[in-house]
Amino acid sequence: MRFTAVELIERKRDGLALSPEQIEWLISAFTSGEVTDYQMAAMAMAVYLRGLDAVELSTWTDAMLHSGETLDLSGLRGPKVDKHSTGGVGDKVTIPLLPMVRACGVLAPTLTGRGLGHTGGTRDKLESIPGLSTSLSSDRFMEVLSTHGMVYGGQSENLAPADAKLYALRDATGTVPSLPLIASSIMSKKLAEDLDGLVLDVKTGAGAFMPDPARARELAATMVGLGKAHGVATTAFLTSMESPLGREVGNACEITESIRTLRGEGPEDLWEVTLALGSEMLLLAGGVSDETAARRMLTRAVESGEALEVFRRVVQAQGGDPAVVDDPSLLPAATRRARVRAAESGYVSVCHALTVGIAATRLGAGRERKEDSIDPGVGIRILAKPGDRVERGQTLAEVSYEDENRWEAVRDYLAGAWSIDDHPPDAAPLIGERIRSSEMD
Amino acid sequence: MRFTAVELIERKRDGLALSPEQIEWLISAFTSGEVTDYQMAAMAMAVYLRGLDAVELSTWTDAMLHSGETLDLSGLRGPKVDKHSTGGVGDKVTIPLLPMVRACGVLAPTLTGRGLGHTGGTRDKLESIPGLSTSLSSDRFMEVLSTHGMVYGGQSENLAPADAKLYALRDATGTVPSLPLIASSIMSKKLAEDLDGLVLDVKTGAGAFMPDPARARELAATMVGLGKAHGVATTAFLTSMESPLGREVGNACEITESIRTLRGEGPEDLWEVTLALGSEMLLLAGGVSDETAARRMLTRAVESGEALEVFRRVVQAQGGDPAVVDDPSLLPAATRRARVRAAESGYVSVCHALTVGIAATRLGAGRERKEDSIDPGVGIRILAKPGDRVERGQTLAEVSYEDENRWEAVRDYLAGAWSIDDHPPDAAPLIGERIRSSEMD
Repeated sequence: MRFTAVELIERKRDGLALSPEQIEWLISAFTSGEVTDYQMAAMAMAVYLRGLDAVELSTWTDAMLHSGETLDLSGLRGPKVDKHSTGGVGDKVTIPLLPMVRACGVLAPTLTGRGLGHTGGTRDKLESIPGLSTSLSSDRFMEVLSTHGMVYGGQSENLAPADAKLYALRDATGTVPSLPLIASSIMSKKLAEDLDGLVLDVKTGAGAFMPDPARARELAATMVGLGKAHGVATTAFLTSMESPLGREVGNACEITESIRTLRGEGPEDLWEVTLALGSEMLLLAGGVSDETAARRMLTRAVESGEALEVFRRVVQAQGGDPAVVDDPSLLPAATRRARVRAAESGYVSVCHALTVGIAATRLGAGRERKEDSIDPGVGIRILAKPGDRVERGQTLAEVSYEDENRWEAVRDYLAGAWSIDDHPPDAAPLIGERIRSSEMD
Repeated sequence: MRFTAVELIERKRDGLALSPEQIEWLISAFTSGEVTDYQMAAMAMAVYLRGLDAVELSTWTDAMLHSGETLDLSGLRGPKVDKHSTGGVGDKVTIPLLPMVRACGVLAPTLTGRGLGHTGGTRDKLESIPGLSTSLSSDRFMEVLSTHGMVYGGQSENLAPADAKLYALRDATGTVPSLPLIASSIMSKKLAEDLDGLVLDVKTGAGAFMPDPARARELAATMVGLGKAHGVATTAFLTSMESPLGREVGNACEITESIRTLRGEGPEDLWEVTLALGSEMLLLAGGVSDETAARRMLTRAVESGEALEVFRRVVQAQGGDPAVVDDPSLLPAATRRARVRAAESGYVSVCHALTVGIAATRLGAGRERKEDSIDPGVGIRILAKPGDRVERGQTLAEVSYEDENRWEAVRDYLAGAWSIDDHPPDAAPLIGERIRSSEMD
């Protein structure tokens, strides 16, 4: 069956649904180059403004997932469950989470991504560990996974190549925040991983890519539906990204905080999200009776030191220096320090995640463009979060940086992240709704 | 002032207006290549679905018109008035019209276009005259225009280059039939011609690019408004393109019919449209009291042979064989003939312009793709038009063709152009509303 790009663009432009055959042809012809970038850009804008219905979205995701290789993990024993976060500021959950679930018997064949825009990337954070590489060959990936029961992989160009190509195009054509395009992009890569279960952390609030709670909920439900349609038990959590998660925002400093978490000494909000996602991963993997039991198992894996031991072995297996696990001062650190101080006394009502994330990126912790390099030692340590009482002049954050001009350019902007009120703010829930494919119609 | 393509695409995507500075930057950066084809494709789709308001449209047109050279006709004495048709099947009006208005003292610096899709191009028709070229250098263009008071120019790549670039992109991305993009495309080229007046023939009905009368009227009013905003007295006519105009559809055969029209022997509908557009051109040029006087002048220019003489001289000046004027059998002709016959007796109710146009194109008279070459001798002579009484077996059309396979593939399709009823159809008006910039608010 053959089509032309123009007739399919016209259909979508006019609000008509594309057939499964049309979508399969489109994605395959785009992957091969027969459908040009400018044609796909027009299609992406038409999809942005006209949407995709449930059948179209499922076919679209499927076509992307089959545009390249898929993982074959059938040779590995044990349940395979992965997690994905839509991304936030200070969100390092994947790093302690995987060793914790691994210590409880769950295999997580995670493929991490680089940071772009105001959020960091797990892949960049991990590579701040001296020597560690996430660019593993398929053989090495399987070897680490089968030997250690987990691996910090890097997104491969061979998995869902149509997604990588389309994402680059969307980034340059104002079509990133399209719900069906986001959902199919995330799910095409996750569904290529040969999973038994998938837990999604969909961020809402100031620092999220989809700040609006209603839209974030729709995205979550859409992705859970896609997982279900592809036979993968999927659960999404809506979690708050109004403030940064944890107290460290950067790369090396987030590894330090992850190690603290694996020692049971992490900040409360980070621990809470890690435990919520982890216990759901254990439940999807089976073999645990209920959430309370799952949380207990995970806590025990931390208290026993087993989770930290898994982390140490995997760091070493991927070329990293295992000594950082006991001495995080071996991680890269920027040479200059500065403080953000409270302009008045009162209660912190806001610590604006987006502002902190953009400031960290501008200091060199992230990338404004794909080709930018990052500075692993740069970071912002947050000492005052919403609800905290502060006095005028008290330190709100400690900033580690390298470039004096960058710091000067960003200091006032960063200070604007905090709002201080006379009264303590109402406590906002960190973890919102949970949507499970098993509970869907 | 600098912008990024992404921020402008996002604005338009979200239904917000672009500022004049933003539009000027966009068109200029697209012309230079700084804004990529895929970014402009996404923008074109956003404009298709979100539209442009009057201010945006005027700036957009202006930016396109200033993307390259403009004509400077200030050295020529006399009023300069041009005409444009949105294109139809058998529409050869420009060819007899220009010598007629020239014989009445009006300068027409026309730049004709190639045919694409189901309509022919005036430029292709003219070049079926042996030796004639419409690809004139600027110097030669000005020389023919100043010596003979008219010229059949060809659209130049230097005039509104942003339009040529954008049109090619729209053609490949399903964004051709966007009212503001059509209006700005046409008007940017016409307003680059340094005109005193402009007459637009906006076709409606089956064979028009914009068949819907309400949309065609909106396009007409939009273009008249753009002319007015740029200080060019502009009039648009809405004319019917349900049936082909005249009786010849092709290239060489339309030259023959144009010559007949210049001799006062053309078909009535073609003569009517030519006279309506021509008298309006004379009125816009000034120096004629009213429409009746203008029509009389044009008729006299034909009866006296003066218009034909202008045509002969211009054909010769552009390298064409002037002998064709007296002996059209010198024009190229296809070697094979076939007839379409009436399947029943009755009154012709429909002679479907689009069907005839597509059939002519498939026989080789037009281009399905830009790179196709055309066969100047191929043509369809229409012997029965709506209202005509025909008997079963009577010839509805004579077809001249070259390729037997092409004819076999198209014969049944072409026969479907005619509908025959028991009763004569209601007479539909050929020339509809006239919209004048001088009568606009």
